[in-house]
Amino acid sequence: MSAEGAFCLEAYLQTKKQLVDEALERLLPGEENYPPLIFRAVRYSVLAGGKRLRPVLCLAAMEALGAGGLQLSVMPLACALEMIHTYSLIHDDLPAMDDDDCRRGMPTSHKVFGEDIAILAGDALLTEAFALLSGRELRDAFPADVLLTVIHEIAVAAGCFGMIGGQVVDIRSEGQPAAAETLHYIHTRKTGAPISASVKAGALLAGAGKEALESLALYGRNVGLAFQIVDDILNVEGDRQKTGKSTGSDVYRGKVTYPSLFGLEQSREKAHLLVQEALNALSGFDDRAQPLRLLAKHILERRS
Amino acid sequence: MSAEGAFCLEAYLQTKKQLVDEALERLLPGEENYPPLIFRAVRYSVLAGGKRLRPVLCLAAMEALGAGGLQLSVMPLACALEMIHTYSLIHDDLPAMDDDDCRRGMPTSHKVFGEDIAILAGDALLTEAFALLSGRELRDAFPADVLLTVIHEIAVAAGCFGMIGGQVVDIRSEGQPAAAETLHYIHTRKTGAPISASVKAGALLAGAGKEALESLALYGRNVGLAFQIVDDILNVEGDRQKTGKSTGSDVYRGKVTYPSLFGLEQSREKAHLLVQEALNALSGFDDRAQPLRLLAKHILERRS
Repeated sequence: MSAEGAFCLEAYLQTKKQLVDEALERLLPGEENYPPLIFRAVRYSVLAGGKRLRPVLCLAAMEALGAGGLQLSVMPLACALEMIHTYSLIHDDLPAMDDDDCRRGMPTSHKVFGEDIAILAGDALLTEAFALLSGRELRDAFPADVLLTVIHEIAVAAGCFGMIGGQVVDIRSEGQPAAAETLHYIHTRKTGAPISASVKAGALLAGAGKEALESLALYGRNVGLAFQIVDDILNVEGDRQKTGKSTGSDVYRGKVTYPSLFGLEQSREKAHLLVQEALNALSGFDDRAQPLRLLAKHILERRS
Repeated sequence: MSAEGAFCLEAYLQTKKQLVDEALERLLPGEENYPPLIFRAVRYSVLAGGKRLRPVLCLAAMEALGAGGLQLSVMPLACALEMIHTYSLIHDDLPAMDDDDCRRGMPTSHKVFGEDIAILAGDALLTEAFALLSGRELRDAFPADVLLTVIHEIAVAAGCFGMIGGQVVDIRSEGQPAAAETLHYIHTRKTGAPISASVKAGALLAGAGKEALESLALYGRNVGLAFQIVDDILNVEGDRQKTGKSTGSDVYRGKVTYPSLFGLEQSREKAHLLVQEALNALSGFDDRAQPLRLLAKHILERRS
């Protein structure tokens, strides 16, 4: 990374992840509350680790707009994004959906707590995310009408026209002949929409104008889709230790993926093109968008 | 009801229910959207009928504060309350939870659409409720900071310290020796909190002052708990045709209920006392609180 100048992405990612982890630890109620089981289950999945990609993209978008100084105030939003992501993983892993036993190298929520509590832990994370987004901390720091716009963006991206729509098509197209259109729909809704919403949410709280907001949303959509394609590629060739999932599990399940439809080589090319488009979307931004640029490239090179 | 003057509760309930049903029909996207399956599943459960108690309490609270003229503007909130209620029913009915085949006299969501889609339909209703609460219609009619307070109230009432906490204790205490404290916890969180939040949400949008808000919240908590006790009683003695559920299903499941702990007679007395307390909480209100008063009494007398 030193070729990019003094900025070191590794250290940046590490610092942001730590900030978000500390905020999650603080904002998620502990097991001293009643009933302890639900707080244990919620904390088990959220604090199991993870790259915190959505919160980091949100923080990097704020920095690109010169609002890096607000990063502590924005922590409830960063945490809400991660909580909604975690809820989607818990529910995706359920026996009625992908039936995964293992996530991030650990037993999935329903293996540890039972299906009933896993469903409720997902429900709780989704609900508490909206409690944070409308809570005192953010309201003391940001205008109410902007917060409402952020809540709306996030809810729409997570809803029937976003993440949930993508998941419905994903699980109900398993074993079906894969059409490129269907695949594109799944990836843009299931992964692209929430990632784009994370970038937009940060931009909105940073007071972005219409043009900057559109550029950052475009960056987010491209990066989100690239991220999912790389995920598909890693599922074929990645090693289990790094992804924490069984290699080839998508093939086993008959899931539609980029590699299954276009082959590995063309999938890599597609991811490259998307990252290039993401970088183009940032052409009007100055050096403060450097973290966003390096994050986009990093997504291509990731191995887990 | 004519003894209470010209006001007829039956007609009132019918009118409000129709208003809410029309708004739900309008605000829930139809099956012409992609993927049709999720919209079909969402609409199946929401439009299956129901008393629309939470929306009606919300509207009646606004009327008690002289803001009945706002009832059309407040429809997205009324619908959001019903959507969150319906999500909780869909998830409660899942095989991993109560495993109910029948609700409101119709097959439950997972029996019709499969467990995967039932989970996602519940998730969708919860998510889309927050999209409505932060959406254009309410924002054009009400101040942003009041809407944030409403969103927060609803999220907290539906979360770990409210409905979800109650459900966790409920499913995990089945077959356990019933303690009065546990039972009280379950009922106040699972039913009391969301009903009280419905009343408060209406009061907030009507611009209630601190004192009126507290009185209405107290009314809501008492009415919510009374409603649940009557529900327990009807589960023992009600007829299946009216409740749409199997009579005695709570006993079969070893669920903690008021009748199982205190007997039918004492349970009826307790419900009476709670309704009396709810009415006392309204002592400072004038005739415009008549619908709220009659609703409280109606809850005692209901047979389904």
